Amino acid sequence: MGNKIKAYAASEPKGKFEPFEFDAGELGDEQVEIKVLWCGICHSDLSMRNNDWQMTEYPFVGGHEAVGEIVAAGANVKGVKVGDKVGLGWNSGSCGHCEQCISGNQIMCRDLEQTIVNRHGSFAEKVRCHWSWAIKLPDEMDISKAGPLFCDGITVFNPLYQYGISPTDKVGVIGIGGLGHLAVQFADKWGCEVTAFSSNPGKTEELKNLGADFVVNSRSDEELEKVKGKFDLILSTVNVTLNWELYLQTLAPKGRLHILGALTEPIPLQTFSIIKQKAVSSTATGSPTVVSKMLEFCARHDVKAVTEIFPMSKINQAFEHLESGKARYRIVLQNDI
Amino acid sequence: MGNKIKAYAASEPKGKFEPFEFDAGELGDEQVEIKVLWCGICHSDLSMRNNDWQMTEYPFVGGHEAVGEIVAAGANVKGVKVGDKVGLGWNSGSCGHCEQCISGNQIMCRDLEQTIVNRHGSFAEKVRCHWSWAIKLPDEMDISKAGPLFCDGITVFNPLYQYGISPTDKVGVIGIGGLGHLAVQFADKWGCEVTAFSSNPGKTEELKNLGADFVVNSRSDEELEKVKGKFDLILSTVNVTLNWELYLQTLAPKGRLHILGALTEPIPLQTFSIIKQKAVSSTATGSPTVVSKMLEFCARHDVKAVTEIFPMSKINQAFEHLESGKARYRIVLQNDI
Repeated sequence: MGNKIKAYAASEPKGKFEPFEFDAGELGDEQVEIKVLWCGICHSDLSMRNNDWQMTEYPFVGGHEAVGEIVAAGANVKGVKVGDKVGLGWNSGSCGHCEQCISGNQIMCRDLEQTIVNRHGSFAEKVRCHWSWAIKLPDEMDISKAGPLFCDGITVFNPLYQYGISPTDKVGVIGIGGLGHLAVQFADKWGCEVTAFSSNPGKTEELKNLGADFVVNSRSDEELEKVKGKFDLILSTVNVTLNWELYLQTLAPKGRLHILGALTEPIPLQTFSIIKQKAVSSTATGSPTVVSKMLEFCARHDVKAVTEIFPMSKINQAFEHLESGKARYRIVLQNDI
Repeated sequence: MGNKIKAYAASEPKGKFEPFEFDAGELGDEQVEIKVLWCGICHSDLSMRNNDWQMTEYPFVGGHEAVGEIVAAGANVKGVKVGDKVGLGWNSGSCGHCEQCISGNQIMCRDLEQTIVNRHGSFAEKVRCHWSWAIKLPDEMDISKAGPLFCDGITVFNPLYQYGISPTDKVGVIGIGGLGHLAVQFADKWGCEVTAFSSNPGKTEELKNLGADFVVNSRSDEELEKVKGKFDLILSTVNVTLNWELYLQTLAPKGRLHILGALTEPIPLQTFSIIKQKAVSSTATGSPTVVSKMLEFCARHDVKAVTEIFPMSKINQAFEHLESGKARYRIVLQNDI
């Protein structure tokens, strides 16, 4: 077995993905190699393909919601072994010895390696990562639906965990797409009262089935007025500008507006709007132990992504479907390389 | 003894204070009447006198950092009695039965009464409040310096308490005036490493004497660059626009920028600037039990306001001194009505 890996790569911003083979070099002593079985497509894959964040290298192999089987392990790998079913998300490595890594906050490591930044991701036959970021899947989990948990899932689960959200809290979720449809399920199973804010009233029944107690039109000032002072936590998953001032008013005292979407415009934050011990905050994905806790929680509560499946060879059709805004709720590629 | 109270009132925005007498009516069953011995002057008294917040009623009697002695108590007063030495801050009443009051968060009560809003404050012979907001002073406290604790003091102490700040944390304080000079002392006695951000380099020695370990020029981008990624908590007490983006970069992962000054311009908050679980938040003063804990902490650690004393009859000179920006650090009026 050589070090060649077959993949799909875009060669320029907005370019189509085409078959691509690259030499991955020797496997690092601390690395594992994962045979990709399934890989979700995240909106960040699209942003990276299009170089929206000015940090894409071409040829670009995206894919950071992978699940598969470890097929090779470096000499110093710990905790996982060849044959293990694992998942890999946005991060593929961290230094392991800084204050943040040692204290379990690997996500804050300054030398964090990102799966699809300056390296090749999981729209490929195989993908590599540091052993600490290859997270074992619970045996009972349906691996065909597990991929999106490693990016969407952990992104919305992490704040519930980090902030010690109580099951007595009232949680709002803005934007019900890949992230949001998992956030609604998590908050519901967490024991909270859940309000889904959506701009698509046609989704109401579907959102209630996912676990929403209430559905509010995210763009209706009139509807927002009616829920003033209510929420302990709002998770915003959108990347568009909303009436943030009014959303801050929907927070209860000590409430938090937590931003998970990559907003392009700043939020104009007025001191008086947050004076009742309110906060605006943000996080990105989560550290390995939190990913493991999330997977366990998902298995126990049957939380899973609602997916649409494309073979990886139809990756361009899958991206077109994503761009159309019609994906319900997450596209997953089944590997057929 | 009638219900007449002698005071000093301004009759229009920016007007001088002049002797004024008003009929306070019958004392409420739940109210106490405090003979004002000392009263601090806060920047908010100036903002209110000038109607900066469009909520001032004239004639305006300011004063919300009072200490004195209870001289009368309504039939249903609990917890304090005639003869007690107490202090009164920004708030003078709350409903006592809402969720927030019952859970000890009286400061979040929707029916919060504010000492100098739609009623008369403590630039007066006597001032009234609900018994729950007349907070007993520890016996050993120098009451001549205690007034500012009831507004400045609790405003900067409350976030240390609410957020469970650890003595291992690194705390920054922006703006070293009435609020800031107490914040530096509190954070120092709390056991934290303290950095004072000041625009006045001449204050360096003085700030170190107050408890600052380091002094950084608050307006120097170059100096701010050197403390990137450092602070777990920054308390900002200024009301001017600073380079907030750079201040957010001086926060450590999970760090918090907490705004206590009444900023007139919004902070333009970029998601990517807070993505490492950073937060921007705000609070106003604190609830009664936290005020009591602060007073006890002050007595035990000898935290006190650095004051300049004026007789209350010289209130206009005192305000001119405040407006000159030269007060070090807090003006207190000694009552001579």
